[in-house]
Amino acid sequence: MRVIESFLNGAWQSADGPKTPLVNPATEEVLAEASSARGLGDAVRHAREVGGPDLRAMSFRQRGALLQAIAKLLHAHREELLDLAVVSGGNTRGDAKFDIDGGLGVLAAYAELAETLPDAPWLVEGEPAVVVRTSKVRVQHLLQPRHGVAVHINAFNFPAWGMLGKAAVAWLAGMPVLSKPATSTSLVAHRIAELVVAADILPPGAFQVLIGSVGDLLDHLGPQDVVAFTGSADTGAKIRGHRNVLAHGVRVNVEADSLNSVVLGPDVQEGSELWDLVVRDAVTELTQKTGQKCTATRRILVPEAALPALRDALEGRLGERAAQTGNPLSKSVKMGPLSTAQQLADARAGVAALRERARIVRGDPQRGEFIDVPAGKGFFLEPILLEADAAAVLDRGAVFHRVEVFAPVATLLPYDGSVAQAAAIIGFGGGSLVTTVYSDDRDYVARAVAELGPQLGRLVLSDEKGAGGSFSPGGVFPQAQHGGPGRAGGGAELGGRLGLELYMQRTAVQGGASQLARLFGG
Amino acid sequence: MRVIESFLNGAWQSADGPKTPLVNPATEEVLAEASSARGLGDAVRHAREVGGPDLRAMSFRQRGALLQAIAKLLHAHREELLDLAVVSGGNTRGDAKFDIDGGLGVLAAYAELAETLPDAPWLVEGEPAVVVRTSKVRVQHLLQPRHGVAVHINAFNFPAWGMLGKAAVAWLAGMPVLSKPATSTSLVAHRIAELVVAADILPPGAFQVLIGSVGDLLDHLGPQDVVAFTGSADTGAKIRGHRNVLAHGVRVNVEADSLNSVVLGPDVQEGSELWDLVVRDAVTELTQKTGQKCTATRRILVPEAALPALRDALEGRLGERAAQTGNPLSKSVKMGPLSTAQQLADARAGVAALRERARIVRGDPQRGEFIDVPAGKGFFLEPILLEADAAAVLDRGAVFHRVEVFAPVATLLPYDGSVAQAAAIIGFGGGSLVTTVYSDDRDYVARAVAELGPQLGRLVLSDEKGAGGSFSPGGVFPQAQHGGPGRAGGGAELGGRLGLELYMQRTAVQGGASQLARLFGG
Repeated sequence: MRVIESFLNGAWQSADGPKTPLVNPATEEVLAEASSARGLGDAVRHAREVGGPDLRAMSFRQRGALLQAIAKLLHAHREELLDLAVVSGGNTRGDAKFDIDGGLGVLAAYAELAETLPDAPWLVEGEPAVVVRTSKVRVQHLLQPRHGVAVHINAFNFPAWGMLGKAAVAWLAGMPVLSKPATSTSLVAHRIAELVVAADILPPGAFQVLIGSVGDLLDHLGPQDVVAFTGSADTGAKIRGHRNVLAHGVRVNVEADSLNSVVLGPDVQEGSELWDLVVRDAVTELTQKTGQKCTATRRILVPEAALPALRDALEGRLGERAAQTGNPLSKSVKMGPLSTAQQLADARAGVAALRERARIVRGDPQRGEFIDVPAGKGFFLEPILLEADAAAVLDRGAVFHRVEVFAPVATLLPYDGSVAQAAAIIGFGGGSLVTTVYSDDRDYVARAVAELGPQLGRLVLSDEKGAGGSFSPGGVFPQAQHGGPGRAGGGAELGGRLGLELYMQRTAVQGGASQLARLFGG
Repeated sequence: MRVIESFLNGAWQSADGPKTPLVNPATEEVLAEASSARGLGDAVRHAREVGGPDLRAMSFRQRGALLQAIAKLLHAHREELLDLAVVSGGNTRGDAKFDIDGGLGVLAAYAELAETLPDAPWLVEGEPAVVVRTSKVRVQHLLQPRHGVAVHINAFNFPAWGMLGKAAVAWLAGMPVLSKPATSTSLVAHRIAELVVAADILPPGAFQVLIGSVGDLLDHLGPQDVVAFTGSADTGAKIRGHRNVLAHGVRVNVEADSLNSVVLGPDVQEGSELWDLVVRDAVTELTQKTGQKCTATRRILVPEAALPALRDALEGRLGERAAQTGNPLSKSVKMGPLSTAQQLADARAGVAALRERARIVRGDPQRGEFIDVPAGKGFFLEPILLEADAAAVLDRGAVFHRVEVFAPVATLLPYDGSVAQAAAIIGFGGGSLVTTVYSDDRDYVARAVAELGPQLGRLVLSDEKGAGGSFSPGGVFPQAQHGGPGRAGGGAELGGRLGLELYMQRTAVQGGASQLARLFGG
């Protein structure tokens, strides 16, 4: 059996010890085994001492050229990567593109951003500030790359986008990367790393990849290091609360799965273009990546009067999709399996929990037959739609405000059509990555920005005029902040230039006006 | 005995139970007692439900007018507050001004900032970003006040500046404040609260003050709340690692005491104006507030050749200051006592620890007689200067890189005069609020910005030309970021408009170009 290894301290390596089988989730065929590695303290030092200084010595534009070269390299291997994503991750070809092209897109966007950044070792923020009116002393805020390693702990659902999207930003900011893919889908991340390492594009130490267990990695981190984690809120809290992370003030960014919502405004009429968009987006968000997206919709808020019609529309469309679920190698398949046996078990347990306060309106969590799948094999769950009644929706503690089922599962929640009630219901989720408001009522939308906005990292506004050209709300653009308050982890990634700040240290430089002008221009 | 109470849920109140005596640290006379309070969950809800909506309904300029009114009110009571600070906190009159005028200064600076902010409910950041070249969809980043309470947990050393400096920023951002002063010096904070509450300037619920223990306050916080803490790194880590804070992703900002340094460039000649500034600043930073400042200098890096002359100069000046130490009610006193018996015990233990790797060159941690102090009374420590040898300085684990003595205590550290070695030594401290570089060598200074900057929240540059008009590096301006990486807590406060971000939520609003233009202008 093929064993995939880590790339640490400039060499491919694995430790003795137990291996983890990597499985095709549609067939349960074992594709390879993942080893774990040792010597993570050395890897951290290698990044800090070898990778960091070389990256910092480059200008933003030089670093941008690295991103462009990596994007070009991987684009030449796109078909191979898509095929690998289909067999190793349960992705349809569309899902695989969403992941791989998403990663290439962040590389390209940050390479483009580099062109707009100064040819200097730092980012100067604004003008020097006067501190005392009668004095020549000024303060200039500066951003410089941190002198540590950027540790990226990624989620299983996006092995390519997670790895490349985080790394592109860190590299452009000037920090070396130590990337730990989720083990279950690490074949794609590992292949990307093989290609990038072999092409010798990056300076030594700028890119290391840890396959398998995270081991004692967090014990080796210090005050100049950054951890960017994507995954569950529980694991996020464990990283933030890790003894060494707290003791050394390691900077931590968490993107946690959250209870994302959509809200139908009371003005949306059945049969309008906007109505059709609601249905289309909901089906996409439930079924793309088999619902395994941190931004996927989990709660659908609908004015009570519109609920029956929306239920009917979704029932129909999700029924069609259920009939197209199976092994994604088959051309007729539009939704693949969940990624692992554990995900399937968790999803079934989650649906059972939701049923305490909501009823299933379509889908059977135990259904067992899917297209081109050996009998009894594969981690499949068909799309499941639930519905709660109005009293349950207004109960802050109701299970659908608390439990996220990371699968093609969502719950219809009736509300009274007011922004105030929608905001309260969204708030019961404790902070989300994204929520979408569908409305042509300008007052409603303006109030939604004020009342819902602070609960969210991203707010998508959809109206009749834009319905034809909009993007499904679960898609994350490199130009938009990705991250939300509270349960969503309190983090922020991407967002164009804003994203660089995670990997840079802001310093207020205080000195004489002429001295600062000499150093920083202006 | 007078008992000071908390102002919570719109009323002054205290719980039964033990009281804490508040002591004049120069004489050990008991001035009052502090009670604790109950019902902190109600106070949190009062802030969120009563204070928050009213503040959010105001424009930035209206909130700025509140700050201005509070500054005016407190200015009218400045003499009373200064007198109270002298007897209750061990402050000289100069120390008291540093605290009280510092607080008034932040109110004034943020009132002034308000004039520059838009007359809108949100701060729009930059231009809408294009996400796909062929599409009309855009992303606009917005900042809006968070819908929770700003909990301020302040340090004993700056009861006025800590309370007002944090509150001014939160109020301008649009968040209600629940302020918890450190108990030992809470008389000043309590008096400020009495004045502000009685003047009825703020909307109900916008300002609550918790005297005494923090109790179970953290258990009541949620995803829209913010905690801003100033104090020790240990307590900061406890707040960050608190179970409920982690579970709900409460936003936490920590300003922790850190090992701040000054660095003499190899070009600074004895007898130059810059040399004299080094000596003057060092004496100020050791002795102002009796060395009890989070920004005070703890490590003085000096090129080996210059060390004997600097040691002599500091010995002389600190000796003079030692002779002027005593009860700050006496006109001849230039340095008062430490704030509490515990601070004195900790400082003596800290000096004993430093002596493992450094020798005392002046000062006696056991000296017992001071100006106008009853025999055997008061929490006094005279200025103490230590010196390490070059080998110890390069030991990453040496105690002076680890232990901060929060008192008039610093250690001279010889180095080889290179930026690289200075950066390594600074780095052994694990992240600092501030470091000062004294040099006229432009290359040295530019390299210092790059190599030292990322270890620091603030870097002060001092040269011969600016020596006459510079400010002592421990002073914090409202326009400059206050906060540093790693051991300094990884936080950021103040910094003009940047400071507002702590209390606001950034949301990426995604929508059609014309829709966003209608909502946000442009």
